[in-house]
Amino acid sequence: METWSKTIRKLDVLSPVPTDIDIANSVTPLPISDIADSLNLSSNHYDLYGKYKAKVLLSVADELEDSTDGYYVVVAGITPTPLGEGKSTTTVGLCQALGAFLDKKVFTCIRQPSQGPTFGIKGGAAGGGYSQVIPMDEFNLHLTGDIHAITAANNLLAAAIDTRIFHEASQSDKALFNRLCPLNKDGTRSFAKVMLKRFEKLGISIPENHNDLTPDEIRRFARLDIDPESITWHRVMDVNDRFLRKITVGQGPNEKEMFRETCFDISVASEIMAVLALTTSLADMRDRLGRMVVGNSKAGEPITADDLGIGGALTVLMKDAINPTLMQTLEGTPVLVHAGPFANIAHGNSSIVADKIALKLVGPGGFVVTEAGFGADIGAEKFMNIKCRYSGLVPQCAVIVATVRALKMHGGGPEVVAGRPLDHAYLSENVGLVEAGCVNLAKHISNTKIYGVNVVVAVNMFSTDSQAELDVVKTAAMAAGAFDAVICTHHAHGGKGAIELGIAVQSACERQSEAMRFLYPLDISIKEKIYAIAKSYGAVGVEYSDQAEKQIEMYTKQGFSDLPICMAKTQYSFSHNPSQKGAPSGFILPIRDVRASIGAGFIYPLVGTMSTMPGLPTRPCFFDIDIDLATGKVVGLS
Amino acid sequence: METWSKTIRKLDVLSPVPTDIDIANSVTPLPISDIADSLNLSSNHYDLYGKYKAKVLLSVADELEDSTDGYYVVVAGITPTPLGEGKSTTTVGLCQALGAFLDKKVFTCIRQPSQGPTFGIKGGAAGGGYSQVIPMDEFNLHLTGDIHAITAANNLLAAAIDTRIFHEASQSDKALFNRLCPLNKDGTRSFAKVMLKRFEKLGISIPENHNDLTPDEIRRFARLDIDPESITWHRVMDVNDRFLRKITVGQGPNEKEMFRETCFDISVASEIMAVLALTTSLADMRDRLGRMVVGNSKAGEPITADDLGIGGALTVLMKDAINPTLMQTLEGTPVLVHAGPFANIAHGNSSIVADKIALKLVGPGGFVVTEAGFGADIGAEKFMNIKCRYSGLVPQCAVIVATVRALKMHGGGPEVVAGRPLDHAYLSENVGLVEAGCVNLAKHISNTKIYGVNVVVAVNMFSTDSQAELDVVKTAAMAAGAFDAVICTHHAHGGKGAIELGIAVQSACERQSEAMRFLYPLDISIKEKIYAIAKSYGAVGVEYSDQAEKQIEMYTKQGFSDLPICMAKTQYSFSHNPSQKGAPSGFILPIRDVRASIGAGFIYPLVGTMSTMPGLPTRPCFFDIDIDLATGKVVGLS
Repeated sequence: METWSKTIRKLDVLSPVPTDIDIANSVTPLPISDIADSLNLSSNHYDLYGKYKAKVLLSVADELEDSTDGYYVVVAGITPTPLGEGKSTTTVGLCQALGAFLDKKVFTCIRQPSQGPTFGIKGGAAGGGYSQVIPMDEFNLHLTGDIHAITAANNLLAAAIDTRIFHEASQSDKALFNRLCPLNKDGTRSFAKVMLKRFEKLGISIPENHNDLTPDEIRRFARLDIDPESITWHRVMDVNDRFLRKITVGQGPNEKEMFRETCFDISVASEIMAVLALTTSLADMRDRLGRMVVGNSKAGEPITADDLGIGGALTVLMKDAINPTLMQTLEGTPVLVHAGPFANIAHGNSSIVADKIALKLVGPGGFVVTEAGFGADIGAEKFMNIKCRYSGLVPQCAVIVATVRALKMHGGGPEVVAGRPLDHAYLSENVGLVEAGCVNLAKHISNTKIYGVNVVVAVNMFSTDSQAELDVVKTAAMAAGAFDAVICTHHAHGGKGAIELGIAVQSACERQSEAMRFLYPLDISIKEKIYAIAKSYGAVGVEYSDQAEKQIEMYTKQGFSDLPICMAKTQYSFSHNPSQKGAPSGFILPIRDVRASIGAGFIYPLVGTMSTMPGLPTRPCFFDIDIDLATGKVVGLS
Repeated sequence: METWSKTIRKLDVLSPVPTDIDIANSVTPLPISDIADSLNLSSNHYDLYGKYKAKVLLSVADELEDSTDGYYVVVAGITPTPLGEGKSTTTVGLCQALGAFLDKKVFTCIRQPSQGPTFGIKGGAAGGGYSQVIPMDEFNLHLTGDIHAITAANNLLAAAIDTRIFHEASQSDKALFNRLCPLNKDGTRSFAKVMLKRFEKLGISIPENHNDLTPDEIRRFARLDIDPESITWHRVMDVNDRFLRKITVGQGPNEKEMFRETCFDISVASEIMAVLALTTSLADMRDRLGRMVVGNSKAGEPITADDLGIGGALTVLMKDAINPTLMQTLEGTPVLVHAGPFANIAHGNSSIVADKIALKLVGPGGFVVTEAGFGADIGAEKFMNIKCRYSGLVPQCAVIVATVRALKMHGGGPEVVAGRPLDHAYLSENVGLVEAGCVNLAKHISNTKIYGVNVVVAVNMFSTDSQAELDVVKTAAMAAGAFDAVICTHHAHGGKGAIELGIAVQSACERQSEAMRFLYPLDISIKEKIYAIAKSYGAVGVEYSDQAEKQIEMYTKQGFSDLPICMAKTQYSFSHNPSQKGAPSGFILPIRDVRASIGAGFIYPLVGTMSTMPGLPTRPCFFDIDIDLATGKVVGLS
């Protein structure tokens, strides 16, 4: 098999490991056109965005439609500490091992991070140490503008909703109709193409002479009659701005006191982000954007973006965003960065189109490694039941990333809090805590095996881990049914530190034999689907609030009950209670509310309160971020 | 002189003139790298953004520092009707004539349009007919992300302001200090570099041992004590969203009832846009962004972005936006698109850096044609007194675009309203109305001659104009002191329709002999400067509201009185009253309020109410905008 080795870069690894930005800046990336060349992509297959980023055009997938896919590997994790257990870093490190040391064709498929946390508390998300996507500043800032396009599209739709209500309130049916579809000089009417969809939805056939439309037909067409209380569409911004969590709009002197309480979410929480991640083609994206539901009419009918006449314009705003962005790892292997939906109110996985293109490009014997957000209880479950269901793609292997630190926490170790020093228990050997905590790992393994994949456990090693502790994890993983369990040091050593993981993943893919299974079929009731997922968490039952009951009834009545379920649950426990570590069981899962992203294609029950707009701390990351005016390089990005 | 003729494209002109998007789609643009090649730019000088756009790097200006500039031409207009008189179209048409028919090296420097109006009522802004910048959809949508970068930077700063007030309210001086500058393990403190600027501003020298800082010094450093009532920094969005004109933020349960009334402006109204347009280098942009004033402390001291610790992060967000975007006209001449500040609350001119780069690239005997927003009373005045003052560049020629239609309005013709059919007076010959209206043109000519440039009048001809009407305009223009006055048909014929204009502009540049003059010096008082501008409008005096008096006093006390003045006045009259057509005189100019953009570098008095957030009509443009799924092309963009 031909390899892509000509772009491979040898790393000079330092110890102790320098900061992420220093490592990233120490390497001169290859021109991204060199990476594209190595993939046999010609300049017609991609658009450059500067020297180190390119958008790979969807047409590549069409051209390669008849080629065979490579192996499809998903990286998930155990229930993490608030510090994170290195899932992105492991995803990148595994790819560097497969590409730079094991001579495989390999693609990393990864999410675009939100800019909000980059300037807030979290810093960047390009991996870490010697396993990173570069240039890391370009990865973390703007990238190729996809999130900005989502913000623009989301907020155009939001403006359209309030303005439509405003105009409907002051105009008669006839005036409204005449403004929406003005009379031309020749007596015809200017119906926009998108309006024909609404006529069709309403079952009104436009008569040859538009003057024959009845007043009732005109009213039904022209008056969306949106119930302001029912609006679920929020404005968004890619900034951590807590003061926008609840606001009142429409207080200007010309808005006729049509005040409305609403909020801003962070942009990655927009349904348009979820659409981008789950769409399969430009035509499919046009459909999904058009059928997004923004609220109900006062009669209880769902109102869509196409009812507002805006589905086409949203697609135009998103037409470049649908193409994934090609970048590279520190060791010169190719990366596709694309989409980054929330992992709670959405499904937390990078895009289907990126995975599809990558699977064709690596071809038989090659590997596509894609990451699922949060712990495997949420991330892998949604990867399988939502993303793979929509894509039709079948994974052969799931990698579950574990750390001794997190396992100690699950075994009863003291609370881990971001920004506070770690307790002694985490910095010295404590085999007992690790052993006790492995129930969490075991449950993630057995849960993930349900889907018919081989599970490989990657123990992301820290310098404070002892051999005895690491051995315990390996033994527990194998006992729980893992295909293999290996220790990795890719943070400190790059791909070299994940060679054993790479070999295990290759073997797991080659020897995978089961058919893929879903956790639930689509044609059962919303509650049955929720129960199936709750059981997988360890729950013995589900409890619904009145609001949740009402919503389930409404969505069922509206014909949306066939959609998959996207649980909005904490990542810090299998249960709804973040302080329940390990593998809790016997609990009743409470569903506070149920919402839907109809265009993206899922129902999302809320298990507890989900914040969709982070805040800034007293000293946000932005204090340290600046340009070195002598070199033009970004400093202070972590 | 070597020319750039190898990229010139011959147009096949149809009659009647097709729609703008149809004309734009009928031409296959050259790869932008071909345009760059023709300019002798190597791939190190620019970054591609897809096939038809490239960002030209600022380093080009540094490399060419010692070369001689070409001729510098500004295009302004008479007082327009609400339909616009074709200033952008004339700018592009003139360049197509100079480049494609007169063998000159020529660059068009033009503003990036806001996406809000594109989806609202106005449509695109790439010129029109056979004088356009292409691809027009890419020009009007996203471009290379500069406005998105401005939105992101503006809103990060906005979030930082409210969050800082929030954190200060709940923390003691010491706790605040410890969080802002945490203690390291070795006993040192983590001062961010930007914090040193604040210590310096406060006159506090950090003692060798930071523990020797006095409680008073700690308080003064850590507590910005922003007066919420004084905040002038608004959030922005590049969408026409009237419901954000006045809002209340901070109503979430965790924001401690720190409600605040504020608003969103459209993104192009952000001071950061004005900074981008007026900056001259990366280091200068870093300074300007850092010194932007967002409000006052309760003691009345101005609080800057650098006081908030965010100037560096804003620069990082804007580091690519500082590079202008290279595109092309329909006839293959090069265009730089860069910045698009509001023409009322800001100065309404494209960027200094684009003009500087273009002047070096065309070199001696070449032409840079740049457009000034609104009528010449505002656009040309600000071009001269603000933009040229900051750039040090000297124009040789000003083109004033006039139409018979607008002159008839100034001569007493009926009101012209967008969206309503034109009155008969505008569609048939009426020499008397034209003659009477020429006072408006004459005043713009004499006002513009003050700056020491030759003035060429371009009459943008419509099919309904009669020869007698056109002759009247020419005669009046010459009588008012124009260097030349010519009839142009570039909308219908492309560059060929502006050959005579091109020859006149060349002659005006070659024969310009006066030194450049400003309307006012900087070292007089704010009121004296305002009076100088008011006089140029025809006013005999200026009247200040109490609020305006208070603000002038405050800015003077704060040391900002040396800045140039940027009048926020209607473009529909020389006076403050849009219904006063022609050349009104003897009026008193009322100043309602006075504000400042300290980072951008100007004081802006408000003459009447300026809307900084447009709305959407009942049938916005977005109804017709869609993707043709068969070709992938945008349809319905006007």
